[in-house]
Amino acid sequence: MTKLTQSSEIEAFLDQIAGVGKAGEQRVKTIVHKIVADLFETIDQFDVTDDEFWHALNFVIAGAPELGLWAAGLGLERFLDLRADLKDQAVGFVEGTPRTIEGPLYVAGAPLEKGTARLDDGNEPGEVLIMQGRVRDTRGNAIAGAIVDVWHANTKGNYSYFDKTLPDYNLRRRIETDANGHYIFRSIVPSGYAVPSGSNIEKLLTALGRHGNRPAHIHFFISAPGYRHLTTQINIEGDPYLHDDFAYATKDALIPPVIRHTKTAAINPLGLNETYSEIVFDFVLNPADVAAEENESSRARALADA
Amino acid sequence: MTKLTQSSEIEAFLDQIAGVGKAGEQRVKTIVHKIVADLFETIDQFDVTDDEFWHALNFVIAGAPELGLWAAGLGLERFLDLRADLKDQAVGFVEGTPRTIEGPLYVAGAPLEKGTARLDDGNEPGEVLIMQGRVRDTRGNAIAGAIVDVWHANTKGNYSYFDKTLPDYNLRRRIETDANGHYIFRSIVPSGYAVPSGSNIEKLLTALGRHGNRPAHIHFFISAPGYRHLTTQINIEGDPYLHDDFAYATKDALIPPVIRHTKTAAINPLGLNETYSEIVFDFVLNPADVAAEENESSRARALADA
Repeated sequence: MTKLTQSSEIEAFLDQIAGVGKAGEQRVKTIVHKIVADLFETIDQFDVTDDEFWHALNFVIAGAPELGLWAAGLGLERFLDLRADLKDQAVGFVEGTPRTIEGPLYVAGAPLEKGTARLDDGNEPGEVLIMQGRVRDTRGNAIAGAIVDVWHANTKGNYSYFDKTLPDYNLRRRIETDANGHYIFRSIVPSGYAVPSGSNIEKLLTALGRHGNRPAHIHFFISAPGYRHLTTQINIEGDPYLHDDFAYATKDALIPPVIRHTKTAAINPLGLNETYSEIVFDFVLNPADVAAEENESSRARALADA
Repeated sequence: MTKLTQSSEIEAFLDQIAGVGKAGEQRVKTIVHKIVADLFETIDQFDVTDDEFWHALNFVIAGAPELGLWAAGLGLERFLDLRADLKDQAVGFVEGTPRTIEGPLYVAGAPLEKGTARLDDGNEPGEVLIMQGRVRDTRGNAIAGAIVDVWHANTKGNYSYFDKTLPDYNLRRRIETDANGHYIFRSIVPSGYAVPSGSNIEKLLTALGRHGNRPAHIHFFISAPGYRHLTTQINIEGDPYLHDDFAYATKDALIPPVIRHTKTAAINPLGLNETYSEIVFDFVLNPADVAAEENESSRARALADA
């Protein structure tokens, strides 16, 4: 604490700002009080100038559409996961597939298919990827009718919906597991991506001496009645940014081996006869105590209300 | 500090986030490290849920164009003034006209007139206001050629440029003081205003049990070569929100008496013969040590680069 922020004048001012003693929502007051007090302290401790303050504020205003990327790049999204991991450990949930960050690029409402799906709409360039496995519980029991909601980037690191040149729901599908809990999909091996060139998050990361690259990865929401919702990703092994992700999402248990099949290898279940990659990965869910745990967070998402 | 944010794991994570040990800008790293550490602590201390975090983030994203009003309403702009006041006191600058906040509604480039100006374009409804006085130094010497850059709201609490139905630079002028340091202008008595109905800053203030009203006021930038730039406002006495300003800008020395002239009173210098209000107010400037002090902060402003 600094001299000014320790003063009774500032303490009283903070109470005024947070509406202490007035009507309103107590939790909002408490948290706003803390955030504004911390900002006062930061300004005072580092002798932040008016110019610096207004520059920073306008930098946030101009960067507002990318604040989802800021939350990832500044580790806030990872921090929420660390907290959730601790809570899981406290109740003995240590066997399920690890969670990792959602990121800001999910789009609700992807086509729902049974058991098997093709994500690339038949004309997306890139090496074919087959990914398959089971959704199961921690005792190994298959979970039939689970929803594997998968989304990933193309070989340019772009996502459909956010890149309007791509078809609707390109590289996005929901797949319902079969009676054995099995899912399988055909897609293309994604590339990593970087935060938008010229964006304020890129400028901020540069000022921090950092980059804005993510390694190649595939996102998943896994859900089933009676089980806790899982938000996770798998990484494509070998990516140069595998352990240097600007969003801090990589976990060792989420880097499955990639099996390369050459032309001379056995023809796969989807009838492929070319060089392709395959990933086998099971998703392991923990039981839900209450129905609310079956759902993803209520974060605002593209098309979620459409 | 909480258990998680005290951990060496989180300390190391914060260093990663702030790019400690990498290239970049040391000051940005230091301040980002502090801000992110404080946010981690806030999340942990109040057990902020994922839903709450994402709701808050999206609330900021949606409210981003109003963040200037947030800075005023959350007392940050006032806090910067308190710091500047302390610095003035430390160097013995206690006689000048008090500063108060700029607010987010200045527009650069208002018409420049010599000695006298009319701000209301001749057809703005409201009671006529004559305001006049001198710009002088702390020893009483007139400052000729000072610029009185004045802006205020109309009787609906609206500002030109932001209310596109109003003429360009309506109720905005720059007036150059005459050889005696005198300025005079004719305008209309402004009303206070409230933050936009339905805006996120309004919702936030409501959650804090507060309102978003400002008392009627008139903004000024006062500048002259060799003198420190002054950002200030005067309030119109008698306003119900005079000492309950959501932006915390009221100062006792900035509430000049309002003189009501009735039809039977003397005709004023501008030839008025109707009921009108008059304010007499001198602006007192402190000397600048360095040229940079002659200018307002480099805050981004409407039309400043046009």
